[in-house]
Amino acid sequence: MKGNAVYAQSGGVTSVINASAYGVIKEAQRCDYIEKIYGGFNGINGVLYEQLIDIQMEAPENIEGLRYTPAGAFGSCRRKLSSLEKNRKEFERIVEVFKAHNIRYFFYNGGNDSMDTAYKVSKIAEEIGYDLVCVGIPKTVDNDLPITDNCPGFGSVAKYNAISIMEGAYDVASMHRDSTKVFVLETMGRHAGWIAAATGLAHRSPKDGPHIILLPERLFDQDKFLAKIERTISKIGYCVIAVSEGIKNKEGKFLAESGLVDSFGHAQLGGVGTIISDLIKNQLKLKVHTAILDYCQRSGRHIASQRDVMQAIACGRKAVEIAGKGLNGKMVTIIRESNDPYQWTTGYTDIEKIANVEKLVPDEYISDDGMHITEDFKIYCEPLITGEDYPPYLNGLPNYIKLERHLVKKILPEYK
Amino acid sequence: MKGNAVYAQSGGVTSVINASAYGVIKEAQRCDYIEKIYGGFNGINGVLYEQLIDIQMEAPENIEGLRYTPAGAFGSCRRKLSSLEKNRKEFERIVEVFKAHNIRYFFYNGGNDSMDTAYKVSKIAEEIGYDLVCVGIPKTVDNDLPITDNCPGFGSVAKYNAISIMEGAYDVASMHRDSTKVFVLETMGRHAGWIAAATGLAHRSPKDGPHIILLPERLFDQDKFLAKIERTISKIGYCVIAVSEGIKNKEGKFLAESGLVDSFGHAQLGGVGTIISDLIKNQLKLKVHTAILDYCQRSGRHIASQRDVMQAIACGRKAVEIAGKGLNGKMVTIIRESNDPYQWTTGYTDIEKIANVEKLVPDEYISDDGMHITEDFKIYCEPLITGEDYPPYLNGLPNYIKLERHLVKKILPEYK
Repeated sequence: MKGNAVYAQSGGVTSVINASAYGVIKEAQRCDYIEKIYGGFNGINGVLYEQLIDIQMEAPENIEGLRYTPAGAFGSCRRKLSSLEKNRKEFERIVEVFKAHNIRYFFYNGGNDSMDTAYKVSKIAEEIGYDLVCVGIPKTVDNDLPITDNCPGFGSVAKYNAISIMEGAYDVASMHRDSTKVFVLETMGRHAGWIAAATGLAHRSPKDGPHIILLPERLFDQDKFLAKIERTISKIGYCVIAVSEGIKNKEGKFLAESGLVDSFGHAQLGGVGTIISDLIKNQLKLKVHTAILDYCQRSGRHIASQRDVMQAIACGRKAVEIAGKGLNGKMVTIIRESNDPYQWTTGYTDIEKIANVEKLVPDEYISDDGMHITEDFKIYCEPLITGEDYPPYLNGLPNYIKLERHLVKKILPEYK
Repeated sequence: MKGNAVYAQSGGVTSVINASAYGVIKEAQRCDYIEKIYGGFNGINGVLYEQLIDIQMEAPENIEGLRYTPAGAFGSCRRKLSSLEKNRKEFERIVEVFKAHNIRYFFYNGGNDSMDTAYKVSKIAEEIGYDLVCVGIPKTVDNDLPITDNCPGFGSVAKYNAISIMEGAYDVASMHRDSTKVFVLETMGRHAGWIAAATGLAHRSPKDGPHIILLPERLFDQDKFLAKIERTISKIGYCVIAVSEGIKNKEGKFLAESGLVDSFGHAQLGGVGTIISDLIKNQLKLKVHTAILDYCQRSGRHIASQRDVMQAIACGRKAVEIAGKGLNGKMVTIIRESNDPYQWTTGYTDIEKIANVEKLVPDEYISDDGMHITEDFKIYCEPLITGEDYPPYLNGLPNYIKLERHLVKKILPEYK
C-alpha cells in the first residue's frame, strides 16, 4: 500500500526520542511504500488540528541533528483519546485528516498512555473502514513497558542519574569531615523504580554510593531507613541516597502527598527529595544536601547512552519496516538475545498488550532489605548505559537543532 | 630553600580542584626545591592533626587521574582558623607539624574563606619565626574572588548549568502545549550571581531560555517577576527561569528564609527553587517543573569546561613556580589578556587582598530590568565554558580515581 505517513511524539520526552524520529525518517525516505512523511505537531493534536509538519522541507542537517537533539522536536502532548464509543467524532476527524492527506501509515512514539492512543488509532481500519497501518515505537524514561526488554530513553536517563549520584557521592565524600553528611538524589519514576535502581550501577564497591535506594516497589519504612543511614555513617562517615519520586508510606500513600511537610502534597509529585532530607535533618540532626534533577535528567542528551541512541534509531527504522509488511497494531520491541556478550535485536508485539500496562522492577532485582539492588539488576542494566554519544558543540554548548516545522497547507475546516 | 611541601584543599569542592592538585604535583616533582610533596587530609585539619597523605606512594595512574576526577581527592574542610591573637596554640601546632616534617612550602587551594586561612598561615614566618612560603590557589564555583579575572571551578559549573537549562528548555518547549508551562532551575550562588548569570549563555536567540534570570545582586520584585513570566508565555507559550539560591526579597532577607513557605527557612539555603515555583503555581495557576542540581553541578566533571581544566592545572603549576621564588603570601590569579581572540595567562597577587572579599556581578553585566544578562557578560563568560574535556569511561560510567591516601607516619603527640 503506497501512501503518506505521519510520525508523532507523545508523553514525557527523552534524550533519544528524536533519534527514533531520525530512524523513522531515514527508513521512510529509503522505502518505496511511503511517499511523503509528515510530523504530527504536538502528537495526536497535530492530526486532530490538521497541523502536519512537512519533513520534506527540513534542511538535511536538521534531520541529521535529530540524532543528537533531546526532547520532542515535533512537540509532544499529554492528550489521551477517549474510546470510539464515547467520542466517535474524534476518530472520524482523524480519519478525515488521514484521508485528506492520503495518510496510510501512522507511527506513534510514546509510553503506556500513548500506546493506548496508538491502539485506538489502529482499530480505525476495522471500525471505520479506512485502510491504515499504525505502529507504536516505544519511548519512556520510566522503562515500564511490558514485553520489550527495555525502552529507548531509559538507558540515557539511567546513565545520567548513575553519573550524577557518583559525582554527588564524590562531593560528599570530600566534604563530610566537618560539613555535609548525607546526599539525597531524587529521581523520576512515579510508579516504577527503574531509574532510582539504575543509580545503583555507581555502587561498584561497598563504600561507593548510593548506599540506600528507595523504590516505589517497596513501602517506605522510616525506622529501617533512618537506622540504615546511621549504620552507613558510622562505617564510612557519610551516606548517599537515591529516592524515587513515587515512593509510598506504609498506608500506601505517596510520601510527596502524605502531609509530612504540608507545603507540598500537590497532585504533581516531585518534592519527595526535600521531604526525605527534612526527615533526616529533623530526626538525625545531620547536614543534608538534596538534588532534584527533574527535566534535566530526561533531556540530558549531552551524556546520553550510546547504546540507547542506537536502540532508539533501530526502533524507528523497525517501525517503518513493520509498516511495510502491513502489520497494523504492533509496537516495536527490543529483544535481549544474550547477556555475555550483551546482544540485542528488535522485534514487535501487539500494541494491545502494552497499552496501560506497567512493568515494575521485579523482586529479583531488589535487595533483601528492600533498599538496594541485586547483582542481577546490574547485569540487566549495565549494557543499557554503555558507551557515550556526544553531541557536537558550538562555543561551549551543545549545538542542538530546531526544526523549521513548516506546516502542510490545511485542506479541512477547523476542528473544534 | 629546599624542603617538603603540603598541598591541601578547602571549602566547597569543584569539578577541577583536583586538576589544580595535578598541576601542583607535576610541577613539584619537576622542580629542585621541593623534595617531597604531601597532601593535607581534609584541608588544614590534615596539618593540625598531622594527617599527611604521602603523594609519593600513589600510583602514577592515580596522579594522572586527578586531572579528570571531580571533588576533593585529599578531602576538603570547612574549618576556619581563628586569629593568631585568639588562638596562638593552633598556629604553634601548625609550625610544630611543619617542623617535624620539614615542610617549607604550603599550598592552599580554596575560595575567600580558605584564603583567610592561607593568609594567616603565611604570617607564621614573621609572627612565629619559621621560614615558610605559603601560596594560595584559587578555587570556587562562585567565581567571587577579586583581582583574578575568573576562578577555576567556575567555567565548569557555568557550562554545566548553561547546558542543563538549555536541555530543560528543550524539554518544556516540547511539553508546553498541554502540560508544563514553566521550568525553574535553581543554581548555586549564595551572595554572587555568577552561576545563575552563566545560564544566560544558553539564550542565543530571543526565544531561547532562560527568559528570566534572578540574581542576588538585585532584590526580588515579585510583581515584576510574575508580569515577565506572563509576557513571556503570551509570546512563546512557556517560560524558563534560572534562580540563584541567594536571592533576597525587598526587605533584604533571603527568600529561602523569608517564611514564604514555612517548611523551609533553615540556615542552609537551597530551597528557593521550590519557593519560586510554588509562587508561580499559586499566583499564576500554571504547571511548573523545578530542578535543583545542588552538588551535581559543582562536581559534574563529566561535562567540565576544557578551558577551566587547563586553567586549574596552570594555577597549580604557577603556585609551585611562585613558591620557588620565595614569594610568600601570594595567590595565583588568572589574567585576561584579550577577548578577541580570548587569551589568558597566570599571575599573582597578595592573598591579603583576596581573603574574605566577595566580587559580585557588576552592573554592566546585568540587564536594565535586572532579570537577565548583557552582551558584555556573554563576552566575559563564553570563553570560560569553551571546550569539552571528557573523562575516560568504564562500562558506561566515568572511571574516576580514588587516591590510596597512605598517611605519613606521625611524629608528634595527638592534637586536641
